[in-house]
Amino acid sequence: MTAARYDDGNVFAKILRGDLPAERVFEDDDTLVIMDIMPRGDGHCLVIPKAPARNILDVEPESLAAVAATTQRMAKAVIAAFGADGVTIQQFNEPAGGQVVFHLHVHVIPRFDGVALKPHTGEMEDSGVLKVNAQKIRNALG
Amino acid sequence: MTAARYDDGNVFAKILRGDLPAERVFEDDDTLVIMDIMPRGDGHCLVIPKAPARNILDVEPESLAAVAATTQRMAKAVIAAFGADGVTIQQFNEPAGGQVVFHLHVHVIPRFDGVALKPHTGEMEDSGVLKVNAQKIRNALG
Repeated sequence: MTAARYDDGNVFAKILRGDLPAERVFEDDDTLVIMDIMPRGDGHCLVIPKAPARNILDVEPESLAAVAATTQRMAKAVIAAFGADGVTIQQFNEPAGGQVVFHLHVHVIPRFDGVALKPHTGEMEDSGVLKVNAQKIRNALG
Repeated sequence: MTAARYDDGNVFAKILRGDLPAERVFEDDDTLVIMDIMPRGDGHCLVIPKAPARNILDVEPESLAAVAATTQRMAKAVIAAFGADGVTIQQFNEPAGGQVVFHLHVHVIPRFDGVALKPHTGEMEDSGVLKVNAQKIRNALG
């Protein structure tokens, strides 16, 4: 595989620049968390580094460490916010790896006993539902 | 969900203690990488922190950062080792989240255009195949 370059025309880059809206959940110096608009389950959110990186193959180690820390924080928050029974973390690299948007992102998906994941990039969620779920996570972050 | 405690009777704890064999790929001060014995694809390996942690909900942040760094290193290595087209990273927390062994581990799965993932915890791979694939990854690590 030839390493592909970062292209700042991707939707997460646009969200980071404020050129596209998103349901923002959390933000610190190095990371942003937004709701996935095609959630695989209630409360599915995405951890994104602010520094440009296509995926795990080119991200700077310091940026990846910040993403990991925020991912842990969000995993705990979604458990508390939704009374979830578990959390599934996924991170896709390149089209063969499942990647659709080419800015590094980590999926944090609250899980519930007996409830299967919906398909990846399935149906669009109602924006009102995303807003309510984002607020639940914010409340759990304290 | 009530936080569950770490139980050092799990198979990865036994591998870390040397009480069970594993196809070891890489090791540093904080992490161990072994081949998954029920791979979802050729070269599927697991990044494990040496410090005890049930999953992302209780792992110490320093240990998680080390796991993230080793995960990146392995993602690059499996691309090189197998000429993979992408990499899928997964990390499961609690049974509802897909977790089967209760010591934190990150799945690093090389992906190839047009090849679907095999089922999670599917068929046991031949140990000779695991040995060959482990050596390919070690060679790619240089």
